[in-house]
Amino acid sequence: MMDKNIPHIVIIGCGFGGLEAAKALAGKPVRITLIDRCNHHLFQPLLYQVATAGLSGPSIAAPIRHIFRRQLNVTVLMGEVTAIHPDRRCISVEGTDDIAYDHLIVAAGATHSYFGNDAWAAHAPGLKTLEDAFAIRRRVLLAFEHAERETDGERRRAWLTFTVIGAGATGVELAGTLAEISRHTLQGEFRRFDSRAARVLLLEGGERVLPVFPAGLSEKARQQLEKLGVEVRTGARVTSVDEAGVTLTESAGTSRIASRTVMWAAGVAASPLGQTLGAALDRAGRVMVQPDLSLPGHPEIFVIGDLAHIDCNGKPVPGVSPAAKQMGRCAARNILARLEGRATRAFSYIDYGSLATIGRKSAVALLGKVQLSGIPAWLTWLFAHIYFLIGFRNRIIVMIDWAWAYFSFQRYARIVIGAWKNARPL
Amino acid sequence: MMDKNIPHIVIIGCGFGGLEAAKALAGKPVRITLIDRCNHHLFQPLLYQVATAGLSGPSIAAPIRHIFRRQLNVTVLMGEVTAIHPDRRCISVEGTDDIAYDHLIVAAGATHSYFGNDAWAAHAPGLKTLEDAFAIRRRVLLAFEHAERETDGERRRAWLTFTVIGAGATGVELAGTLAEISRHTLQGEFRRFDSRAARVLLLEGGERVLPVFPAGLSEKARQQLEKLGVEVRTGARVTSVDEAGVTLTESAGTSRIASRTVMWAAGVAASPLGQTLGAALDRAGRVMVQPDLSLPGHPEIFVIGDLAHIDCNGKPVPGVSPAAKQMGRCAARNILARLEGRATRAFSYIDYGSLATIGRKSAVALLGKVQLSGIPAWLTWLFAHIYFLIGFRNRIIVMIDWAWAYFSFQRYARIVIGAWKNARPL
Repeated sequence: MMDKNIPHIVIIGCGFGGLEAAKALAGKPVRITLIDRCNHHLFQPLLYQVATAGLSGPSIAAPIRHIFRRQLNVTVLMGEVTAIHPDRRCISVEGTDDIAYDHLIVAAGATHSYFGNDAWAAHAPGLKTLEDAFAIRRRVLLAFEHAERETDGERRRAWLTFTVIGAGATGVELAGTLAEISRHTLQGEFRRFDSRAARVLLLEGGERVLPVFPAGLSEKARQQLEKLGVEVRTGARVTSVDEAGVTLTESAGTSRIASRTVMWAAGVAASPLGQTLGAALDRAGRVMVQPDLSLPGHPEIFVIGDLAHIDCNGKPVPGVSPAAKQMGRCAARNILARLEGRATRAFSYIDYGSLATIGRKSAVALLGKVQLSGIPAWLTWLFAHIYFLIGFRNRIIVMIDWAWAYFSFQRYARIVIGAWKNARPL
Repeated sequence: MMDKNIPHIVIIGCGFGGLEAAKALAGKPVRITLIDRCNHHLFQPLLYQVATAGLSGPSIAAPIRHIFRRQLNVTVLMGEVTAIHPDRRCISVEGTDDIAYDHLIVAAGATHSYFGNDAWAAHAPGLKTLEDAFAIRRRVLLAFEHAERETDGERRRAWLTFTVIGAGATGVELAGTLAEISRHTLQGEFRRFDSRAARVLLLEGGERVLPVFPAGLSEKARQQLEKLGVEVRTGARVTSVDEAGVTLTESAGTSRIASRTVMWAAGVAASPLGQTLGAALDRAGRVMVQPDLSLPGHPEIFVIGDLAHIDCNGKPVPGVSPAAKQMGRCAARNILARLEGRATRAFSYIDYGSLATIGRKSAVALLGKVQLSGIPAWLTWLFAHIYFLIGFRNRIIVMIDWAWAYFSFQRYARIVIGAWKNARPL
């Protein structure tokens, strides 16, 4: 047990923001309690690879307490934080006593948003956690198994129709990879249908795919998706999702798609924990923070990552991992400044660029003013992601997995856990 | 679709027996339907490594339809066979039409047996499937997390007490690996206790561990287990298992062990599918087959692997993977003999030896009359298991995983899927 007189910093969440904040406090005279609902830090940018059976879960996840085993000022706890009490300077944790803090960093992230249609969640899972990724992998692989069992042509078509809702980075990655799986990975493995006949739809309510990219790169991305075999439909607003498919409204009218496998990549909402802070929230539920990332009226509380709303250079900082990491380091520095009686400093976001992968040798990249697409963008994406993967060993394994997948067109992790009778309903 | 006049062979189960049978029929003028409740063939001898976080699931599992992608006379179906109807020559499959056969190979394997105490299953999971392995991994890792959250010393002890019931190969492997995890892998990662203080008990009702080995090797195995830190208690009969621990009766009397994590490795029972065959069963529910592995009165049905009871050289053939593979090839040959109007041949079992691993550099091996223990046995075990792992790529990945684990004392797959709030009750 550490000296109780040493300032106690509680960090909620060990995503990119919380992880960087705790690391930035290594060797400092503070005691840190890092609490997360999971036992692992997740390399979320590669989560779609787990969902599409390209990587196993442990390849992109590292046990939090292993990361901090040598940083002795960190105590890692696994648990669910249910509320923050700024007035009493403590947090509530499910199943255990409240935990008091001197400084608090809230890095609780974001979750899916179904824009008020929460009933859709059962039919169209989102992709934020390893659990989500395994649920999507299971649905996709079992849909092909259902198709092989099915004798009726129309019902088989519905099992072989995959719909991704939302054409941001996650939606584009999922749709592109699903098209590759049906056209290459599974080709020749079924006796009652040709897997290449599977239909992959990417539905987007807005005017173009990857709306955060310049219009030229959006168009390039669309061309690459269509080349892979994805049906891209922009200006398509989903009005209902159920077990049998989706209904959508386009300029041409309303239509129905019979699709047994639907995935949700359309919206995120900030963690509900933000609501317990008593501060102003933006429309997505993100906490409006001060320039130094602290909570208005509570200089001892910092909110970072996807849960924080802050403007830099006249634009909101995007919910991406480099931004979360930068905020984590900034919050740690500002806590140290307060402890040493110095003034805190305003957060400033350095934008290194944007990358989105589409499939084999297909990607788009925006690096400053440089726009890349195709193979150069894909190589940039590949090396950036391997470089940033936590832990040296994971990097090697992921590289081997990818090299093997690249040359063989195969995917490593095509495993459904559990037996058929537990597999229904999907 | 293949010619309906070609003989139709249905194989139930794609463990070692069913897999070998289907492979042995490659290129033959038959059509094969291979049906399994899972989408993967599992390399069961390494399942304890998945349960103890050393390997990821996909490392020891291969999609069945991928294995048979080029063997065009095989149709793979995922499904649950609910009954066999020898009189009508068909099988019932949950959720679809009955499937008729000309020849049938039943390779449905075995499951855990709690000897009539089925309520124990909820508190002491067994280890037969990937699902089981993930359930055990989750319990073990979460027990340490509970211990770090716990403030009461006695309750923490119960979280840090791990009990394995049954000292056959699986029980010995689990107990040895758990001791290594607490003494090496997790050392220094917790702030509120020393993981090396965790207690691992191995309870065995019989007189010695690994009863299928000669007494001298059993004693060597016991010594190696104790050196790793496992408390071995033989002659200890478990009389109750509940959420809080186990009660056992020894010659010294009845005692109670407070243990929140209990694993079952004490008994197996043959698949209940054997009961629908209308043939005589042994005490473990295995089907008494003819010398050529066929069902008495039904020469078109063969029963193989852990579901079959057959004596060779005056002893029952053991329920191990080499025996299942040999039976699979024998059943396939005998079906071909019948199709060609030749007489079937009796099964003869070739025993290549027995291996059991205990931990790092610890194992016992019986190869003919040669008895090995310690490092020589462990190296034999290591190379045999890597050699027999299905699929070239998996072998490489498993070797890298193991080399890394060996030199770093770390374990790759220490990931609990899902959040804390879904983690309780365990």
